[in-house]
Amino acid sequence: MTVVALAGGVGGARLCDGLQAVLPPGDLTVVVNTGDDTERHGLLVCPDHDTVLYTLAGIADPAQGWGIAGESWTVMERLGALGEETWFRLGDRDMATHIARTARLRAGARLTEVSLGLQAALGVPSRILPMSDAPVRTRVLSDDGWLEFQDYFVRLRQAPDVRAVSFDGVDAAEPTPEVLAALASAASLVICPSNPIVSVGPILAMRGLRDAIRAVRAEGVRTAAVSPIVGGKALKGPADRMLASLGHEVSAVGVARLYAGLVDVFVIDAEDAALAPAVEDLGMRALVTDTIMVDAEARARVARETLAALG
Amino acid sequence: MTVVALAGGVGGARLCDGLQAVLPPGDLTVVVNTGDDTERHGLLVCPDHDTVLYTLAGIADPAQGWGIAGESWTVMERLGALGEETWFRLGDRDMATHIARTARLRAGARLTEVSLGLQAALGVPSRILPMSDAPVRTRVLSDDGWLEFQDYFVRLRQAPDVRAVSFDGVDAAEPTPEVLAALASAASLVICPSNPIVSVGPILAMRGLRDAIRAVRAEGVRTAAVSPIVGGKALKGPADRMLASLGHEVSAVGVARLYAGLVDVFVIDAEDAALAPAVEDLGMRALVTDTIMVDAEARARVARETLAALG
Repeated sequence: MTVVALAGGVGGARLCDGLQAVLPPGDLTVVVNTGDDTERHGLLVCPDHDTVLYTLAGIADPAQGWGIAGESWTVMERLGALGEETWFRLGDRDMATHIARTARLRAGARLTEVSLGLQAALGVPSRILPMSDAPVRTRVLSDDGWLEFQDYFVRLRQAPDVRAVSFDGVDAAEPTPEVLAALASAASLVICPSNPIVSVGPILAMRGLRDAIRAVRAEGVRTAAVSPIVGGKALKGPADRMLASLGHEVSAVGVARLYAGLVDVFVIDAEDAALAPAVEDLGMRALVTDTIMVDAEARARVARETLAALG
Repeated sequence: MTVVALAGGVGGARLCDGLQAVLPPGDLTVVVNTGDDTERHGLLVCPDHDTVLYTLAGIADPAQGWGIAGESWTVMERLGALGEETWFRLGDRDMATHIARTARLRAGARLTEVSLGLQAALGVPSRILPMSDAPVRTRVLSDDGWLEFQDYFVRLRQAPDVRAVSFDGVDAAEPTPEVLAALASAASLVICPSNPIVSVGPILAMRGLRDAIRAVRAEGVRTAAVSPIVGGKALKGPADRMLASLGHEVSAVGVARLYAGLVDVFVIDAEDAALAPAVEDLGMRALVTDTIMVDAEARARVARETLAALG
C-alpha cells in the first residue's frame, strides 16, 4: 500500500519516520513544503526537505530535530569572519547538502531530480518530493510589514504576530510530474502534524496539487491528518500563536476546520478527547490516541494507527 | 615606494610575504593570475589569489604553502558521500571563502571588489588584484588532448607532458581599473618566482596589461624578476618539466629569456651564479643571491635585496 504524506519540518518528519518504519521500503512518498526554502550565502537551503531527509536517513540531530547529528560549525564561523550574516546557522555537514544541491541546480537539474539524488546518496528508501520545482516563497505580515519567512522564523525567533501569510509564486507553481504520479497511485494520503498555515498551507495552496488530491479522493482514496495542536498548544513552533493571530481557533478543532472537505480521519491526542465530537461535526472521523512521538516506537505506533484508521 | 608584484601561487606568495614585510603597510599591490581559477561544486575557487591571500593574512598552512592552517575536511567528506567529485580537496575554512566569493559575485559584484572585501575581512594590509574580472581559463595540451588546468594540475598530478598551453578568454579580458591604476602609480614592478608559463604567463598574455607594463617602463619604472628555477629544477610544481616539453631551456636563463625586454634585474640563486653572464647577455642585470625562501627572514631578505637592486 503506497502512502503519500504531506509534510513540513520537524513534526512532519517524525510521522514520516514512523510511516517509513511501518511501510514496506519504497511505499512512502513525502510531498514537502518548499515555501520555507531560502537562499543563504548564494546556496539554496530547503529546510523542510532536509529535515525530512535527515530524519528518514537516520542522521538527524535527535535533540533539535533538524540538522545533522554531531555537526561542526567551522564554515559558518569563517563566513562570519568574512562578513557574512550568521543568524541562519548551517552546520558543516548540512552545508555540503546545500552546496551539492545548488551546484546541481545551476548545472540545469530540476529541484526534484536533485532532491531524489540526495536521498539516494543517503540511502533513504522513501521518496521526498518538493511540492513544486518552481519557487514558492512564504512571507508573513507582521505589524512592521512583510517579512521573508526565515527572517520571521529564525532571525526574529517567531516573535512578531502574524497578521497574514503570502505564498509568493504559488499561482504559477505546478505540482511536478513526480508528485502527480505519486498521488495518482496512492492508496492513502496522510497530512502530517505540521504547521497548517505555513507548512501544509503552501502545499494545499497550489491549485494543481489541490485538484489532484480532490481527484484521487473522488476515486475513493482516503486521507488522514494528525493534529499538530495538542491541548491548545503547538508541539513545536509558532502554529498556536499563528492560528490565534490569524483568527482561527487554537485547538485541534481549529486545525480540523482548515482541512474540512479534504480529510476523512482526523487524529487528535488523548488529551483532546473531549474535542472528538466537534471534529466529527466537521464530517471527519476523529481518531483519539497518544500522538506525542517521543521515540521511534511512538512514531511507528502513531503511523500504524493512522494507517489502520484509513482501512 | 609602491610596488606591484605579479604572482601565481606558492612561490609567488612567499616573495609577496617578504615584500609585505619590508614595505610600509599598503605599499604592496599583487596582481594575481586567474587562469587557474575553477568552478568546483558550483563555487568559484581562485587558487592563486587565495594562496596569496592566506599567506599575506598569516593563516596559510605552513607545510603545504596553500590552504589554511589547521584545516578540517568535514564538508568535503559529506560532498563525497553525496556523490560529488572529491579529487580537488577544499578544507572547511577554505570552503567559506569560496562560498562567500560566489555569493557576492552572483549578487553582482566584480571579482576585484569581492577579492578586496575578503582581504579586508582578513586584515591584509596589501591589495591582491585579480589580473582581470573577466574569466581567463588555462588549459594544457597533453598527448591525450586538451585538459582543464586543474584536471592536469591536481587530478593528474602534473603527470602528462604539456605540449601547448591556452589561456581561454585572454583576448577578451581587460585589466581592471584597479590593476591599471596600481601600475600607473607603481615605483617598481616585481615578477615573482612563479611558473613563467602558467602563472605569470596568463598575466603577461593580456594585451592590455602588457601594454600598461610597457608604458610605465617607458616612463622609467624598473622591473625585477626572481627565477623560479634553481639548479635546473623548479622549487615547486611542474615548471621545469613544462619548460622542457615546450622547448625552452630548463634553467634560470630559460626563464630570463621569456621575460627579455620586460625585466631590468633578474634574480638568480647563488647555485646558478655561473649563469649570470648568460642572463646579462639578455640585457638584464643579474642579481645573484640565496633565493630559497625557507622562512620569514629569508622571504624578507630576498624582497629587500630585490627592491634594493631596482634602486
